[in-house]
Amino acid sequence: MHPTLHALIARDGRRRALGAVLSLSAAAIAAYAAAPAPKPAPKPAEPPDLVAVQLRDAALAGHNIAYEWVSELTSRFGPRPAGSTNEQQAAAWAAARFKELGFESAHIESFPITAWVRGTESAQIISPSVQPLVIAALGESPPTPPTGLEGEVVVFPSFDALKAAPAGSLEGKIAMVTRRMVRTQDGAGYGEAVLARADGPGEAARRGAIAFLVRSVGTDSHRLAHTGATRYVEGRVPVPSFALSNPDADQIERLTALGQTVRVRLFSGASYVHDAHSQNVIADVRGRERPEEIVLLGAHLDSWDQGTGAIDDGTGMAIIVAAAKLIRDVPHRPRRTVRVVLFGSEEVTQPVEPGVAFGGHAYSVAHRTELATHVLASESDTGADRVYRVALPPSVMQSEFARTALRLLVPLGVLPSPRPPGEVGTDVGPTVEAGVPAFALSQDASRYFEIHHTPDDTLDKIDRQQLDQNVAAWAALVWLAADSDVDFRAQAGTPPPQALR
Amino acid sequence: MHPTLHALIARDGRRRALGAVLSLSAAAIAAYAAAPAPKPAPKPAEPPDLVAVQLRDAALAGHNIAYEWVSELTSRFGPRPAGSTNEQQAAAWAAARFKELGFESAHIESFPITAWVRGTESAQIISPSVQPLVIAALGESPPTPPTGLEGEVVVFPSFDALKAAPAGSLEGKIAMVTRRMVRTQDGAGYGEAVLARADGPGEAARRGAIAFLVRSVGTDSHRLAHTGATRYVEGRVPVPSFALSNPDADQIERLTALGQTVRVRLFSGASYVHDAHSQNVIADVRGRERPEEIVLLGAHLDSWDQGTGAIDDGTGMAIIVAAAKLIRDVPHRPRRTVRVVLFGSEEVTQPVEPGVAFGGHAYSVAHRTELATHVLASESDTGADRVYRVALPPSVMQSEFARTALRLLVPLGVLPSPRPPGEVGTDVGPTVEAGVPAFALSQDASRYFEIHHTPDDTLDKIDRQQLDQNVAAWAALVWLAADSDVDFRAQAGTPPPQALR
Repeated sequence: MHPTLHALIARDGRRRALGAVLSLSAAAIAAYAAAPAPKPAPKPAEPPDLVAVQLRDAALAGHNIAYEWVSELTSRFGPRPAGSTNEQQAAAWAAARFKELGFESAHIESFPITAWVRGTESAQIISPSVQPLVIAALGESPPTPPTGLEGEVVVFPSFDALKAAPAGSLEGKIAMVTRRMVRTQDGAGYGEAVLARADGPGEAARRGAIAFLVRSVGTDSHRLAHTGATRYVEGRVPVPSFALSNPDADQIERLTALGQTVRVRLFSGASYVHDAHSQNVIADVRGRERPEEIVLLGAHLDSWDQGTGAIDDGTGMAIIVAAAKLIRDVPHRPRRTVRVVLFGSEEVTQPVEPGVAFGGHAYSVAHRTELATHVLASESDTGADRVYRVALPPSVMQSEFARTALRLLVPLGVLPSPRPPGEVGTDVGPTVEAGVPAFALSQDASRYFEIHHTPDDTLDKIDRQQLDQNVAAWAALVWLAADSDVDFRAQAGTPPPQALR
Repeated sequence: MHPTLHALIARDGRRRALGAVLSLSAAAIAAYAAAPAPKPAPKPAEPPDLVAVQLRDAALAGHNIAYEWVSELTSRFGPRPAGSTNEQQAAAWAAARFKELGFESAHIESFPITAWVRGTESAQIISPSVQPLVIAALGESPPTPPTGLEGEVVVFPSFDALKAAPAGSLEGKIAMVTRRMVRTQDGAGYGEAVLARADGPGEAARRGAIAFLVRSVGTDSHRLAHTGATRYVEGRVPVPSFALSNPDADQIERLTALGQTVRVRLFSGASYVHDAHSQNVIADVRGRERPEEIVLLGAHLDSWDQGTGAIDDGTGMAIIVAAAKLIRDVPHRPRRTVRVVLFGSEEVTQPVEPGVAFGGHAYSVAHRTELATHVLASESDTGADRVYRVALPPSVMQSEFARTALRLLVPLGVLPSPRPPGEVGTDVGPTVEAGVPAFALSQDASRYFEIHHTPDDTLDKIDRQQLDQNVAAWAALVWLAADSDVDFRAQAGTPPPQALR
């Protein structure tokens, strides 16, 4: 998952949607779980879809290929930055594996990108004493001069404080924002803290700063820096920009509190490859009755370069592939087609301009004539921890479909969201913006931002039981949607209900 | 704390003592805690020493300078590798601070060392795909050639498996031991796992290997490598040797399990400074009646270079300094002198040879004429987590002193050890070997080896409540010993009792 700069710009109002969704009374939950009989006359509760129950329970018992997928992919190819050989080789491996698994139409769709390549990088406090710093250049940020940069650090406790600094006040200085990310289950703390990472370089440069430092947008306290994309200003990131590990940010704050002037030396040998390409990997489980109607499941194949992209987004891929594989192996197939797309170049997404693309955009353009028959879309991109909430399109929130879905999901510990999905992510975002209804299976993000975008994003961080629970939720819900003839498109003019009742 | 290579060689039999100490019945503990009246005729339980109670309780309530000491020292000077400017500046700061705090005879005693300096270092898997590895050169290991080293990795699941490899079987290869350290409260897992780090380079080189890799001797699962000293063979570490982070060791193991031949490239620009020096910082709280009798408290000022040496051994210093400062501020002073020594060059200790020294050895040589009046010695070097066990010299294990000590310590959650201290550490080791009685306040090491010798050894890892509990235990016990006239030297020929009864 990345800060969806695209979304930050294009859909500013929705930015906080991720953080503001859950609040539902216990009574409402109980009502759903029990699926009470309609008022007029009691009749027996309908059984949930039996195939969905079987898929769910098989997945939950570990009979699914999720862990095997993420283990083999991350072991064989390691980090998969957009445009890299590793990303391309992983895509080829995935397409071949889809064929072996019996998916249809498995293929790769390439698109051009400018790849950003991390170089050697280093940082030290050089005064009052020499101390190494753990940093990571922010994605797409330019290199320093070959001899590095050196300057006094000006510490801002918040991004607002930086924005309040007068023009010219940072001339020759290194600006640093030390606001700490708040840990929340729904990831809302990320949305708040990431603004400094996204817009800090521009605001710092505008005031004369020669470089920008941000306390890692992450909730851990390890000497590992959380990288991530930062926003272009007039087509480029204006100054060399870095994330500092949380303990390193603490250290500079403490030295400043001791009355010391802190000077820092920074070096980055980052570079750009202008004629690179990335790719989406696409595979179908063709529907038995209405194959042209598509339920789209997305995750991203690229990863940041520091870790092996196990939880971001190896597990997202593993979850949707494993769910689709369970559905594929049902002898009579669902009515509609289930399509899996492993998107390329998600992490370094910038607003789309001529010559700039990312996997989600590339898919929505290449498949624009099909989008009218995409009946539903979603993506998995918040690690491997358990699903705790489901959000459905407004059209079905009070329908029999929703009640059946909840009978399947509540036993997994999944609550109904009182609102339809907000922003569903960068990968299927452009498809959803084009009018395709979305659902969301929200994951517990309490632990996600300890690891996210760091070297620590490796296989050992996966909790297999929670991974299985994800596959169970996806398999059950996707089967239900794909085997139905429900029209998920919201009626025009019908506002989404405030809460499920 | 380092693997006490000196001790591994000189006192092999005692090596496991740390891990084999605790087993005492609940009844025995209760008996101590209650301090039951002697059989013949009931008399009122004696109150514990009132000054010791006051010092203990003040420390426990946070009225002590431990956190301030470790915070300021680690912030100002960061990493303090033996022989570095940072170590020297930190020593000067500490000596000045001792004077400000009212200690007597605060001074620095220098000694010559050959300093080892980590250079730029890097490692990658280069086949079957290119993946960065997180490594740390082992202390004192030689640099690679300037162009690096490259070779096939041969994975050994244990150090015994490496030692069973035939002569010549590793010609041109890179040997790797992947045994995992076991987490234990008493640190016993370290003693077992560290053998591969200490002796692996020699055993690998003897079989033709061009380099040696060891899974980090640590219980975490972060992309942080645990460095540490390794043993000289004929005056030098024979091949470039590195610790791999646990997730990186996993990755190579998984690739091997997938049937892949793994090739790795290694680079280290480590170097040696042959005319360096380190130093011990010494300060006294002079006794009011018998100032020539010394209770010696040790910890080490140097640290590994990757972190800031907060828990290894910033907190050890902080604990003994804070305890001694509480004792110093008692208006009537204890009868005997309490001496604090902050030892230099502990981490890279090698067996003493001409021209090779470390702080603990240097102290025992420089103060050899005083050792006869050193009445007791101990050191704090296992982080900042709580003391859970006290071990006293054999001479006093069944004495009134022990009963009084336990009345002070049991309320802190400290159990009596059924055995006298085993190896007490590298710093006071040579002093104890010279015949000075030792005590030990053993700390809970469950968490210590997640952080030990990694970049993660930073201030944020300290639990202040547990740090205060350490100071409380040290202040109370040291006051008791220093204000007594107890002779702690064991009677010759008296075997230590098997258990306190």
